Amino acid sequence: MAMPLLKVYADRLSQPSRALVIFCRVNRIDCEEVTVDLLKAQHLTSEFKKINPMGQVPAIVDGRFKLFESHAILRYLATVFPGVPDHWYPTDLFTRAKIESILDWHHSNLRRGAATFVLHTVLAPFFGLTPNPESAKEAEKLLVRSLKTIESEWLKGDAKFLHGNPQPSIADLSLVCEITQLELVGDERRDRILGPREKILAWMGNMKKATSPHFENAHEHMFKVKARLSSAAGVKTPSKL
Amino acid sequence: MAMPLLKVYADRLSQPSRALVIFCRVNRIDCEEVTVDLLKAQHLTSEFKKINPMGQVPAIVDGRFKLFESHAILRYLATVFPGVPDHWYPTDLFTRAKIESILDWHHSNLRRGAATFVLHTVLAPFFGLTPNPESAKEAEKLLVRSLKTIESEWLKGDAKFLHGNPQPSIADLSLVCEITQLELVGDERRDRILGPREKILAWMGNMKKATSPHFENAHEHMFKVKARLSSAAGVKTPSKL
Repeated sequence: MAMPLLKVYADRLSQPSRALVIFCRVNRIDCEEVTVDLLKAQHLTSEFKKINPMGQVPAIVDGRFKLFESHAILRYLATVFPGVPDHWYPTDLFTRAKIESILDWHHSNLRRGAATFVLHTVLAPFFGLTPNPESAKEAEKLLVRSLKTIESEWLKGDAKFLHGNPQPSIADLSLVCEITQLELVGDERRDRILGPREKILAWMGNMKKATSPHFENAHEHMFKVKARLSSAAGVKTPSKL
Repeated sequence: MAMPLLKVYADRLSQPSRALVIFCRVNRIDCEEVTVDLLKAQHLTSEFKKINPMGQVPAIVDGRFKLFESHAILRYLATVFPGVPDHWYPTDLFTRAKIESILDWHHSNLRRGAATFVLHTVLAPFFGLTPNPESAKEAEKLLVRSLKTIESEWLKGDAKFLHGNPQPSIADLSLVCEITQLELVGDERRDRILGPREKILAWMGNMKKATSPHFENAHEHMFKVKARLSSAAGVKTPSKL
């Protein structure tokens, strides 16, 4: 009996979902991508909660094994698929530890800042929430602080990737996908935040190049949503994207 | 030349610091514990920022190698010290992946809920902040939801430790230390939140027993601070603990 295909449950509007999709494509991991449409609340169905009881994307099913949390999934796939180059999740103890440190830091800093900012700036109404300008303001501060930290700590000198590694790790992929989500808040806000961050912009370019054309493909859907958001910007209570 | 001692920078009032101290003691990892007193703002000194630029505890220096973020440190120590039993950070791919998933989940759920609740209930004034009752209320909701998730997902049936493992992992240690921090909010609030959570209470007991007497020793300082907080509860602007 053939080994069943790895199933990847994702919505390409979700930044960790995109990171996972790009990782699978770049590393030619044979998988079936199952779309769980967040804007249609498909992540909240009892059917999907059998896959991931937390009701979040991404999640995977690999044979009988189920897993959620994007960083845990990326670590797992990098380890279980022998064809994945070492640089994604280095076996060297010290290099790996530094990458783990960035992955852990991410949750309460860049992720919290960026995701909250995007939610309270543009996405809230689509999830039945009222945007809170105070939350958006606080989140922007955390976001900007996080971007500065990335530049000063992990992109020193002419570092091509985080921690000066010559090739990207799963931390580069996760963090760059998070920052790319800022496209959704519109060009003006994006430029205000990312414009002064030259090292961040160069690093994002390196990441895109290292994973092209999968990076662009995985982001196509997000850019379509961005276009719809821009044209709906004048409408007070948008109900659909 | 002898290998320099591992240095552990910690404040036992910090829950991830305690997790790390307990881990080192239980596993007889020879180390020097350097106290970084958060209430004296020692984490913000330029001297400490040379150890951890994020200005947070815990952090370690192992020879020439510096590392911060408690989960990353626990993973590193479990891997680099050959005497650490496998159950703390299992080499089995699937068991490890499940533990990683819990460690990642922790940041935006239990940790965010519990730490924010403790901050906006009792600790804020000691860090020069104004407690925000609305933030405390929101945090309590997230905290309670997180505790329910732990019970329903990872303490099924007669599970002794998370995910039904017979012995504790670094995820058990990290999460239990986080929950124990609720002592600081006083017995009434603690009982309101933890009272109904029988499985959580039993699991915390298992964890304490598995790491005794190091668990109790590492928590002594926190109980002293709790006593001072209780006696200061009537004072409007406490300035010292």
